[in-house]
Amino acid sequence: MDYYVGIDLGGTNTKIGILNIDGEIFKSTVIKTLSSEGAQKTLTRIWEATKELGEELKIDIKKIKGIGIGIPGPVINQSVVAFFANFPWGENIDIKSMMEEISGVETKLDNDVNIIALGEAKYGAARGSKTSVTVALGTGIGGGIYVDGKLISGFMGAGGEIGHMKLVMDGKLCGCGQKGCFEAYASATGLIREATSRLIVNKQNLLYTMIEGKLDTLEAKDIFDAAKEGDKFSLDLVDYEAEYLAMGIGNILNIINPEKIVLGGGVAMSGEILLNPMKEKLKKYALPVTLKNIEIVQGILGNEAGIKGAVALFN
Amino acid sequence: MDYYVGIDLGGTNTKIGILNIDGEIFKSTVIKTLSSEGAQKTLTRIWEATKELGEELKIDIKKIKGIGIGIPGPVINQSVVAFFANFPWGENIDIKSMMEEISGVETKLDNDVNIIALGEAKYGAARGSKTSVTVALGTGIGGGIYVDGKLISGFMGAGGEIGHMKLVMDGKLCGCGQKGCFEAYASATGLIREATSRLIVNKQNLLYTMIEGKLDTLEAKDIFDAAKEGDKFSLDLVDYEAEYLAMGIGNILNIINPEKIVLGGGVAMSGEILLNPMKEKLKKYALPVTLKNIEIVQGILGNEAGIKGAVALFN
Repeated sequence: MDYYVGIDLGGTNTKIGILNIDGEIFKSTVIKTLSSEGAQKTLTRIWEATKELGEELKIDIKKIKGIGIGIPGPVINQSVVAFFANFPWGENIDIKSMMEEISGVETKLDNDVNIIALGEAKYGAARGSKTSVTVALGTGIGGGIYVDGKLISGFMGAGGEIGHMKLVMDGKLCGCGQKGCFEAYASATGLIREATSRLIVNKQNLLYTMIEGKLDTLEAKDIFDAAKEGDKFSLDLVDYEAEYLAMGIGNILNIINPEKIVLGGGVAMSGEILLNPMKEKLKKYALPVTLKNIEIVQGILGNEAGIKGAVALFN
Repeated sequence: MDYYVGIDLGGTNTKIGILNIDGEIFKSTVIKTLSSEGAQKTLTRIWEATKELGEELKIDIKKIKGIGIGIPGPVINQSVVAFFANFPWGENIDIKSMMEEISGVETKLDNDVNIIALGEAKYGAARGSKTSVTVALGTGIGGGIYVDGKLISGFMGAGGEIGHMKLVMDGKLCGCGQKGCFEAYASATGLIREATSRLIVNKQNLLYTMIEGKLDTLEAKDIFDAAKEGDKFSLDLVDYEAEYLAMGIGNILNIINPEKIVLGGGVAMSGEILLNPMKEKLKKYALPVTLKNIEIVQGILGNEAGIKGAVALFN
């Protein structure tokens, strides 16, 4: 049997797994990334950890046919990283060649959110769909667009950066420095910002009580929890979240017309209380033809999406 | 030599051409579409006209290897038309099979704006680019997304419907029945609507004089003409157009990150007076990485884009 290595390169930790081409994980491990040591050292350490995994599995290392890596940054041609979101590794680094030299194994890479989308498309919630878009709703909003077996990675590696689609002209300031981004409204952070702003002038609600007035501890989950208890203040916030989510996803539907939308990340885990109103509101934003037969589902790969998606680069 | 037929099926007229696979037109003609006679009769008449063209060119009809058709409506799998924008031909009509039965020649179809995008990508302004998006700025706004040799036609044929991306929540009513669409702001019609609205309260400007106060005769071209004369009122309207155009195109850049944007249609013909401020404004809407090396150009295929793009389905 041939084996593949899936690597989810993260700001703090890096997850490494040995899988088969069907996305089945035989063994995985997590190591510290320690990116400050530089790309060469980090990649070498990742390869050492991979070989250890292989030994534990009693796998002949020559049977490893490919290494896939999810990268926190834009990746050009599945080989060169334009820049890293959090690493001091410089610009236009050819990680593919570097890893191939270290390991002697063919290496492919792509942006980490694109990789999650590929994982869901090949092995997860969108398996069997020709076209799917995965929307990662967390601290920020990321996206991956999968069409006919391939990711739309973009000319400079920025394909699928749906979180920075503008929904409001001259709107709320986003972490990217621009204004009115989808992410500034509908990410967990966007929801927390709106909630905090409202809580400053309205303290007569369950949410305020739940967090004991400590605004700086507020998490998106608190809002959904209070809403599930029937707190009107929190239900209004969920409505706000659903509205912008529908506008952003509606735009994706109009532009890509996918067969499936996969929602991942913390916000999506709130479940029906958010998804039901969002689906209803979609009718205002998406052309009717794009809603015909569309399925909007939650991702199923969870924490394993990164290493599975990385291996899917070879599938 | 092998020959291909390109057909641009329009509401009133249908353009037919005989080309080679490189998009070179040997002869073309225009016939009335007469769609009220039904699909079968119209397609038969188109095939008769094609055979006449072939005879004039002294081409053995057996050398025609493919028929490509641009359709005013969403096309599924390059074969079935979900519905026609202006024709009484019903829903989910298998035009591919119908035309293949009439002609005995392999037939492929796609949405007419997608076809223009394919034409520009294979033979026109975006030739040589791996990824390009063509934006047709006319009465409405259409789009076609070309990635790695193929169109993103969408699950239900609605891929590239960028004109109905929402830029303003609860914004201006669009012809589609929804609100806040890109098309409601930045199409020729959108610009005329804004100009008309402003002219009702401000008549002290060159534009009002140029159209002799006849608001119902106002065309987008008048606005650009007056702006080129230095009319402040019209320059402000061009700024409005540039702003929404930049927001819409910026969103496309963030989602697709293409190598090239091709602008077509009447509004794009206004030239630098619109394109220069639009490019400047893009910096507010598009992530910097997506603007690196991007080229934004005017389409070059003009009236021939339809038949050339239709043949490009076989390229």
